[in-house]
Amino acid sequence: MATVDLNADLGEGFGAWSMGDDDALLGVVTSANVACGFHAGDPQIMLATCRVAAERGVAIGAHVAYRDLHGFGRRRLPVTSDELYADVVYQLGALRAAAHAAGTRVAYVKPHGELYNAAVVDRGLADAVVSACAAVDPGLQVLALPASQLLHAASAHGLVPVVESFADRAFLADGTLVPRRQPGSVLHDPGEIARRVVRMVAEHRVTAVDGTELEVRPDSVCVHGDTPGAVEIARRIRTELIAAGVELRPFSVTAA
Amino acid sequence: MATVDLNADLGEGFGAWSMGDDDALLGVVTSANVACGFHAGDPQIMLATCRVAAERGVAIGAHVAYRDLHGFGRRRLPVTSDELYADVVYQLGALRAAAHAAGTRVAYVKPHGELYNAAVVDRGLADAVVSACAAVDPGLQVLALPASQLLHAASAHGLVPVVESFADRAFLADGTLVPRRQPGSVLHDPGEIARRVVRMVAEHRVTAVDGTELEVRPDSVCVHGDTPGAVEIARRIRTELIAAGVELRPFSVTAA
Amino acid sequence: MATVDLNADLGEGFGAWSMGDDDALLGVVTSANVACGFHAGDPQIMLATCRVAAERGVAIGAHVAYRDLHGFGRRRLPVTSDELYADVVYQLGALRAAAHAAGTRVAYVKPHGELYNAAVVDRGLADAVVSACAAVDPGLQVLALPASQLLHAASAHGLVPVVESFADRAFLADGTLVPRRQPGSVLHDPGEIARRVVRMVAEHRVTAVDGTELEVRPDSVCVHGDTPGAVEIARRIRTELIAAGVELRPFSVTAA
Amino acid sequence: MATVDLNADLGEGFGAWSMGDDDALLGVVTSANVACGFHAGDPQIMLATCRVAAERGVAIGAHVAYRDLHGFGRRRLPVTSDELYADVVYQLGALRAAAHAAGTRVAYVKPHGELYNAAVVDRGLADAVVSACAAVDPGLQVLALPASQLLHAASAHGLVPVVESFADRAFLADGTLVPRRQPGSVLHDPGEIARRVVRMVAEHRVTAVDGTELEVRPDSVCVHGDTPGAVEIARRIRTELIAAGVELRPFSVTAA
Repeated sequence: MATVDLNADLGEGFGAWSMGDDDALLGVVTSANVACGFHAGDPQIMLATCRVAAERGVAIGAHVAYRDLHGFGRRRLPVTSDELYADVVYQLGALRAAAHAAGTRVAYVKPHGELYNAAVVDRGLADAVVSACAAVDPGLQVLALPASQLLHAASAHGLVPVVESFADRAFLADGTLVPRRQPGSVLHDPGEIARRVVRMVAEHRVTAVDGTELEVRPDSVCVHGDTPGAVEIARRIRTELIAAGVELRPFSVTAA
Repeated sequence: MATVDLNADLGEGFGAWSMGDDDALLGVVTSANVACGFHAGDPQIMLATCRVAAERGVAIGAHVAYRDLHGFGRRRLPVTSDELYADVVYQLGALRAAAHAAGTRVAYVKPHGELYNAAVVDRGLADAVVSACAAVDPGLQVLALPASQLLHAASAHGLVPVVESFADRAFLADGTLVPRRQPGSVLHDPGEIARRVVRMVAEHRVTAVDGTELEVRPDSVCVHGDTPGAVEIARRIRTELIAAGVELRPFSVTAA
Repeated sequence: MATVDLNADLGEGFGAWSMGDDDALLGVVTSANVACGFHAGDPQIMLATCRVAAERGVAIGAHVAYRDLHGFGRRRLPVTSDELYADVVYQLGALRAAAHAAGTRVAYVKPHGELYNAAVVDRGLADAVVSACAAVDPGLQVLALPASQLLHAASAHGLVPVVESFADRAFLADGTLVPRRQPGSVLHDPGEIARRVVRMVAEHRVTAVDGTELEVRPDSVCVHGDTPGAVEIARRIRTELIAAGVELRPFSVTAA
Repeated sequence: MATVDLNADLGEGFGAWSMGDDDALLGVVTSANVACGFHAGDPQIMLATCRVAAERGVAIGAHVAYRDLHGFGRRRLPVTSDELYADVVYQLGALRAAAHAAGTRVAYVKPHGELYNAAVVDRGLADAVVSACAAVDPGLQVLALPASQLLHAASAHGLVPVVESFADRAFLADGTLVPRRQPGSVLHDPGEIARRVVRMVAEHRVTAVDGTELEVRPDSVCVHGDTPGAVEIARRIRTELIAAGVELRPFSVTAA
């Protein structure tokens, strides 16, 4: 039976502010990318998110980011590799302690926002992120797009690379994402998105914007939850995957 | 031969700002209370401080604090026990990762500033701090004034309590510190301070402001380093302790 | 014809986070308490809020607060009067510039959250807030509960005191609010709340929790908007006031 | 008699941290570039700096910056023109209120750090900064390098452009600064620096690194004060200018 993981960004509130419906989303996904306080999240939110994830068997990943609370980690900051290394050590350590206090553990790392975009293509940044992870916990997995510098760096530093795809993003013929600023870059129809994910997982195929058939083999599919509609889409994906006989399971848990 | 530890607050800069002469002080003390980013410190400073401490055999403690960068942790914040627990988990985890990446470890916890003052007398706060420590690492030691709620809480939660005294503070007849706002609360003469510390360690005696002879058995003596004069006093204490045949050694290292 | 003002807290997002439905609320109220960046708000949100308020003829007040972004200004911070004075000068100046750039002006000041609660009863804090306002703009009005230290301080410093009441809060027999932690402190039924406000404005009467009839003469009534239900209540209040022949007008605008 | 202004960055502490010897520097310069809380400074420091400046007849400029406390405004942030406009409105308004409360006024604006470097060459950023200034106070002067986009923008928006030069920086043959990362970009000899400034002011000449004689007509010369040595250099410059018969006077004060 085919298996796949669903991951989403969680714990992205700060103090009195919330972002998305975490409770609903933690009933849909199998892996939670938990904000570590740099783009979002705070110690109370991190601990609460880890506790609910532990209760529901959702795996925890460190959603490390640039130090940019006001910009929500969506701006590319000119930090050096050494600065980034220290920032990742700090965030990862903080989340590891929260996970441990909640009776669970941090299984993987997935950079957030512009750090993800930057480290997917820049090997220097990817090495800074991944070497920081390796220094803190050599058993971590690294979740990113296939053929990305993040996954190359993971292999180079002895961490397990894990391939993700995106449920609601359009692809170019070379397998990369259509940039967000281009029309059609994001899909909105729940049925179409769900069928697309089922096809990715069951047939290892997805159609690019120009009609090219691409081969994809995601270990995890990223869904979003920061709008009510997004949660509905995530639920639809989950439902249709199960209906198609796909087992949903955290990628970080080795199958029996 | 008598042994004692000298501890001081380190890594209290933030970004471009520095506080005290860390390099000098890391050549004097045997234990460093390292700021964790809440009252001072940032990931880069924490990592650099851990690296130098590791090189010089200086033990590392987590100097956990209220989330109060602008107030330098010197204001009492009305946080709940649950909030404080999460704040301590976060800070401790972040410093543990930095220490690990620097090839060393966090050996103990000592709250900073107003959190120290509050948790010394308030068992609820002391329990929040210590239970967070125990949840993250049951091998941690807790450094505080003798007979404080922090040390009672440490014993209750299975952590090792460690007694500190202060080099430059005057004592009342009941063994508590003369409040800072009272005249004579802080000593300034380097020779007097150094002789006082030697007497604490070698004879277990210190004279209170009213002439009462107090018994003290500090495992560690806290020195300061945030002014040039303070570093000189710290050096003088170290020199006179060695001259008196006292061995300086981190309290967290078990003697052979 | 009776007139009254409706005020609400606006612009309480930060970066990517929002709080409440500002657009809806700016179609209901006649005065906007605009966050100044200390408990919420940022320069972009402040400017945008001032622009929409200016377009819709909504008056602008400075919703000054403790420096407490993480606590949303809901915690009492131990700041000195001098510190608070400087904090208010800063926030007020920043909002005045935003209002000016948007073609409008700051007409009044209303402290936020715990600063409001504290300055209502503490004359020292009230004097710090009000003297800062007077130093920046002697034409400002001060909005607060009747018989509060804030309004006493306003009169003492030559600023115009303006009396507000609360639409959805229960009163004790002495005219003060039932504390939030007590049951029944907050009303929830839209019809009841709207009728209560109409009676306050048209008959100058409100019934306390023990049945006592209190005299109230609010220049402004505070409504909330941080939940969808709250916006509905605010709309209902507006509708019923207009149906009762009450004119809604910013208190800061002198009637012709 | 020749006159000139000396400007320096002031008020660059934050909370418990200080940066440079402000008290000494306020006895040397005639114009103070006061940090506005984005790269450094806080409401208390801003108010205190304005008060001392007012006492000593030192003019006040708004040292507006990127929102980057941790990076001290030394990193180029990818903000849009609209975001930057709002950031400048906010900072300028906050400092104007502090200056007013201290009995003085903000006479000019000089961007800080990387915002200065960026806006000197990028007209879009320069327009964002200057149009924000014009919206808040059309009487402001703008201080920057000659032939910079900041000064072009100032003229375009109706603000008075003011030319500054740097006391301790080397020039290329085209009149621009030797980049800091190149050897010889910063001068260190107090006597040489002082003679150089006197020659700039009295003879309108400075020698570039290749020996080219450049014409310079600075209204103000920027000195530094963030190290003890820097204060000594600033004092030496002041002393030698006075010895050469040059009058030191804020550029923002019209001569009688």
